[in-house]
Amino acid sequence: MSRIPVGLVGVTGYTGMELARLLAGHPSMELVRATSRVDAGKSLADIYPFMQGTRLEGLTLTQPDAKDLAQACQLVFLAVPHGAAMDTAAELLAAGLRVVDLSADFRIKNPGVYAQWYGLEHRHTGLIGEAVYGLPERYAKEIAKARLIANPGCYPTSIILGLWPALAAGIIEPDDIVCDSKSGTSGAGRKANVPTLFCEVHDSFRPYGLGTHRHTPEIEQELGAVAGQKMTISFNPHLLPVDRGILSTIYAKLKGAMTGEGVRALYEEHYAAHPWVRVLPPGKLPELRFVRGSMFCDLALVVDPRTERLIVCSAIDNLCRGASGQALACANLMLGLDVDAGLPVAPLMP
Amino acid sequence: MSRIPVGLVGVTGYTGMELARLLAGHPSMELVRATSRVDAGKSLADIYPFMQGTRLEGLTLTQPDAKDLAQACQLVFLAVPHGAAMDTAAELLAAGLRVVDLSADFRIKNPGVYAQWYGLEHRHTGLIGEAVYGLPERYAKEIAKARLIANPGCYPTSIILGLWPALAAGIIEPDDIVCDSKSGTSGAGRKANVPTLFCEVHDSFRPYGLGTHRHTPEIEQELGAVAGQKMTISFNPHLLPVDRGILSTIYAKLKGAMTGEGVRALYEEHYAAHPWVRVLPPGKLPELRFVRGSMFCDLALVVDPRTERLIVCSAIDNLCRGASGQALACANLMLGLDVDAGLPVAPLMP
Amino acid sequence: MSRIPVGLVGVTGYTGMELARLLAGHPSMELVRATSRVDAGKSLADIYPFMQGTRLEGLTLTQPDAKDLAQACQLVFLAVPHGAAMDTAAELLAAGLRVVDLSADFRIKNPGVYAQWYGLEHRHTGLIGEAVYGLPERYAKEIAKARLIANPGCYPTSIILGLWPALAAGIIEPDDIVCDSKSGTSGAGRKANVPTLFCEVHDSFRPYGLGTHRHTPEIEQELGAVAGQKMTISFNPHLLPVDRGILSTIYAKLKGAMTGEGVRALYEEHYAAHPWVRVLPPGKLPELRFVRGSMFCDLALVVDPRTERLIVCSAIDNLCRGASGQALACANLMLGLDVDAGLPVAPLMP
Amino acid sequence: MSRIPVGLVGVTGYTGMELARLLAGHPSMELVRATSRVDAGKSLADIYPFMQGTRLEGLTLTQPDAKDLAQACQLVFLAVPHGAAMDTAAELLAAGLRVVDLSADFRIKNPGVYAQWYGLEHRHTGLIGEAVYGLPERYAKEIAKARLIANPGCYPTSIILGLWPALAAGIIEPDDIVCDSKSGTSGAGRKANVPTLFCEVHDSFRPYGLGTHRHTPEIEQELGAVAGQKMTISFNPHLLPVDRGILSTIYAKLKGAMTGEGVRALYEEHYAAHPWVRVLPPGKLPELRFVRGSMFCDLALVVDPRTERLIVCSAIDNLCRGASGQALACANLMLGLDVDAGLPVAPLMP
Repeated sequence: MSRIPVGLVGVTGYTGMELARLLAGHPSMELVRATSRVDAGKSLADIYPFMQGTRLEGLTLTQPDAKDLAQACQLVFLAVPHGAAMDTAAELLAAGLRVVDLSADFRIKNPGVYAQWYGLEHRHTGLIGEAVYGLPERYAKEIAKARLIANPGCYPTSIILGLWPALAAGIIEPDDIVCDSKSGTSGAGRKANVPTLFCEVHDSFRPYGLGTHRHTPEIEQELGAVAGQKMTISFNPHLLPVDRGILSTIYAKLKGAMTGEGVRALYEEHYAAHPWVRVLPPGKLPELRFVRGSMFCDLALVVDPRTERLIVCSAIDNLCRGASGQALACANLMLGLDVDAGLPVAPLMP
Repeated sequence: MSRIPVGLVGVTGYTGMELARLLAGHPSMELVRATSRVDAGKSLADIYPFMQGTRLEGLTLTQPDAKDLAQACQLVFLAVPHGAAMDTAAELLAAGLRVVDLSADFRIKNPGVYAQWYGLEHRHTGLIGEAVYGLPERYAKEIAKARLIANPGCYPTSIILGLWPALAAGIIEPDDIVCDSKSGTSGAGRKANVPTLFCEVHDSFRPYGLGTHRHTPEIEQELGAVAGQKMTISFNPHLLPVDRGILSTIYAKLKGAMTGEGVRALYEEHYAAHPWVRVLPPGKLPELRFVRGSMFCDLALVVDPRTERLIVCSAIDNLCRGASGQALACANLMLGLDVDAGLPVAPLMP
Repeated sequence: MSRIPVGLVGVTGYTGMELARLLAGHPSMELVRATSRVDAGKSLADIYPFMQGTRLEGLTLTQPDAKDLAQACQLVFLAVPHGAAMDTAAELLAAGLRVVDLSADFRIKNPGVYAQWYGLEHRHTGLIGEAVYGLPERYAKEIAKARLIANPGCYPTSIILGLWPALAAGIIEPDDIVCDSKSGTSGAGRKANVPTLFCEVHDSFRPYGLGTHRHTPEIEQELGAVAGQKMTISFNPHLLPVDRGILSTIYAKLKGAMTGEGVRALYEEHYAAHPWVRVLPPGKLPELRFVRGSMFCDLALVVDPRTERLIVCSAIDNLCRGASGQALACANLMLGLDVDAGLPVAPLMP
Repeated sequence: MSRIPVGLVGVTGYTGMELARLLAGHPSMELVRATSRVDAGKSLADIYPFMQGTRLEGLTLTQPDAKDLAQACQLVFLAVPHGAAMDTAAELLAAGLRVVDLSADFRIKNPGVYAQWYGLEHRHTGLIGEAVYGLPERYAKEIAKARLIANPGCYPTSIILGLWPALAAGIIEPDDIVCDSKSGTSGAGRKANVPTLFCEVHDSFRPYGLGTHRHTPEIEQELGAVAGQKMTISFNPHLLPVDRGILSTIYAKLKGAMTGEGVRALYEEHYAAHPWVRVLPPGKLPELRFVRGSMFCDLALVVDPRTERLIVCSAIDNLCRGASGQALACANLMLGLDVDAGLPVAPLMP
């Protein structure tokens, strides 16, 4: 059995690391190129000792080169910072490659909104239109045919999956939603940086970017499409002293009286064909460890009759489901494979 | 210099442990009795190796005995579970002692509300009226004269201090408030229990008791008194993989347009005479480690103009400010000492 | 493709949990029975929410029953405490089953030594002789034919793999070895217990059982067989505030001058056919996260010329390599499958 | 009461931070200068939000200036990296100041040994002779009179206090000692650095610098003076996922048969006048949390009759006892204050 050759541009961050982990065991895809400006020439095991002994250990990192990638690969994962990603994506597409871009550069359909939240003008607006938002439960068909995937952000994945059924069914007020999200520290990336040193994060907890985080317009765009109206969300992230995971606690006003069972039935039906979304049974609430290393999105639906609110708790692994695993699911669809090919089955517990 | 003799009923939990820590260095109070049904006969250093070498190491634990306590002490801290605390408090008061009760038994003024949330009938309703809610910023004068202090809960302390100025000034809607609170695991107590084992909490995060936590009526009672109306709060706790600390992120609708500076000025004035409440400068947000081991309550005020909400972040140390330190502050006031006598100055960082 | 049916007696500890995780994705083995005296009647997903959505979620837990297990399964994993395990193993063997026992009951060949360290008489000494010590690198052939596997302890796995080549080659003094081992807290089990509560372990570190841990005779027995002489080891465990992993730092006196390169070459040759043992390149040292969730044993060989010592650092995942993964590898061999069938490829990083 | 004015050169690391914490509550010393090349002009609360509300919050950071320091202060704490510290110390001494140097620059009496381990020539060898090694239990009298203190390293503090009585009494072989030490991550400093990012340390554990750490000659020098002979120690550090604390497990060969009680009696007598050293009762072992934030050094003495070894476990807080607290104790002695003035009493638990 020969595997489909794929490439990875930008291997040295946590999302690149996670892709390497997942591809090391993929039955139908083979990582044949991994690029890094800084570490070109080294092997994957040189920079990632944990990859020693896997079939990818000897892969030599190269300088990014669109021609070389196009000759060697059928598809490329792009894991470089936003701003830089749009140029590289354009180059790779021009060389004939299909691209799964893990950055935010093609997620926002409106270039003005992109400029406003990301503080820079989009230089490849012509590509935005064809980019498909890579949420498999929502856009599987479009993903399968796409040249360019805008892989969803981690926070948006947790929130969109958490609110989609309720907004689609019209049971909550779209104008009065608060998302209080908590993320593991791997979401902050792997740059040398005092605020994410161990002693600055461990045994502590803090909010950041309240009301101003860049994932806000992405959430509003996708949920607005579901609700059929412009939406303004209060999105507020916090930093957890854990490696992986995002838990979003989402507060919405119910339009009319509903029971928890009623909401749960609605969600179960909505996600019946999507086994990665686990609607939890009554009385169970998500925990980050229950999704560690996996593609699961765990949803609890709590109706608080005192305040007439629906509280949705949504938990994912930010690196797997919220980034590299989701990118791999998109690539699976693009290459005609099962959406879950090569993706982990059971979470790592404890 | 002779110190005022005090006692501690129920030494073996984390709040008892924290009281022992604080009393070991108190300049004007001496712990002369510490009771434990299980560990009577042992010394404090036997059960708490960290206390070896302090002046309290040799204190022998005794069986609780109201008469003995009344002869030996001027004041007693009561650190036993709710339900049991009310009987012990009544006994101690009858023996002539002044009591700082760290349980919830005397916090709720309405016995019906107590019965509803705590699932048991109050057996000493006659004492509820005279119990003073031990929040020094709010009730210092009443505390000084009280026989019985109902020491505030940890979550309520963070939320009441966070909302008091805004509700008193009438700048937010009292009927539409969401509190998303996150607590360190010491708040769950020191009972042998699978859900709080290290491997069930570490590198994870989870909500619990959404909309149903017993601290809800306490928050509503105290804030309702500030707002001058009955309040219904959406209070939703989560469990953090940290030892100490509570951070509450509180979402409120502004009644009219206000700037962050305006809200901050209001809070600074409100707390001008209360140095433990630190209103953070613009751009700074609280972190649990900044209050570790201390009496500080750190408040950040963020106005989100997109959603017309005031977001208040409030951080305390749940064991010190949220329990034993606050109890000691009350005792200081009751005994005519400075409110901050024997309490830590700077937090432990990192 | 039909899978080989297997059973698991004692599902509710961390080793049972880990076996469930691994079996959920096994291509050739199917867990058809899982027993628990306490939780019989519940489904696997009821007690382990993280298993929801896997193919094992609906498996109903049963009371342990040797006849039923023998009818339904070809092989049984036994994950109950030592002392109890020997009786159950005897029963299962009598019913015609093959057994992989994760307890210590059949590891020690000398019943007198077992009695001395475990404080109880062995009640099935007749079975000790045929039990095979389940270290695949060392006993693969015997494991394949065995009826009864004594699955190695976690600490012994790390230490035996770390010292085997050096002792076999006779380059170190067998009488002067110190093992300073550090284990994650999952090694302490999942019993409700104050000393392993989150707040008793987190942000702390402690030794325990210095010189007296029950894994000592197991290490001495296996290494003595390698060295060809009776051995006395100084084995000293410590408790780490991490979920998974054991790192043993092993200090041995070199018999003669050797370089790190020389020792490394010896180890690389020794383990050339055993890809799970990764001899690290010069300058690299093991880290627990590099083996998380995997079967790898990472070895660093450091020669300290000042003290003429060989320092071996050996890291494994205590739950996977040190318990359930190793048990599964043994079962693979017993059932004629590849030794690594269904076992994880790349570790979970970070 | 007027306080003695002191200064701090180099405020921005964890040791500077810890000094600020301790000085914020000191009854007899006042921090009147704190210097930082990068942050001059800011207030202490600007760079350390946790210091807001303390009496030091408004202290404005200045550029280091020996003349200004000499005019304003009676004593200066020097918390800059080794190599730089020696020049600054010389300058401050020349300006007439007394100096407590927290770096390694004046700890090693032999400049050749310093050059060999630190990789640079000492530029102020004339000052080495008068520098006093700042271990209060050992050199209190010399410290009181010193102009220049070489404040001990964190690892050496734990190991020297752990071995001093046994070496002084001649009960162990001085030539066959292994120190396996584990340190919290604050010991690695506060530089932006990938290897100490949260996700590189959390839920993991690793050795480093085996046999080559720079604290080795310092340990050998001080213990050699005790033993009355040249010593060669095997010193091997590891990195713990905790904020604070060092636990050294020290393995020594007993010269003759001794009981644990005998060794304990010897240590208790040795440290009878030194309450910060807590010789633990039989059966108790140190835990890092028991010394958190304090000056205690907890020692357990375990005799392993099987291997004829004495195992000493020694635990300290690396930032307080192992750095800034010890520096403050020296300053107390130099200024004629009680050695424990302003130092914490009870550790922070949990």
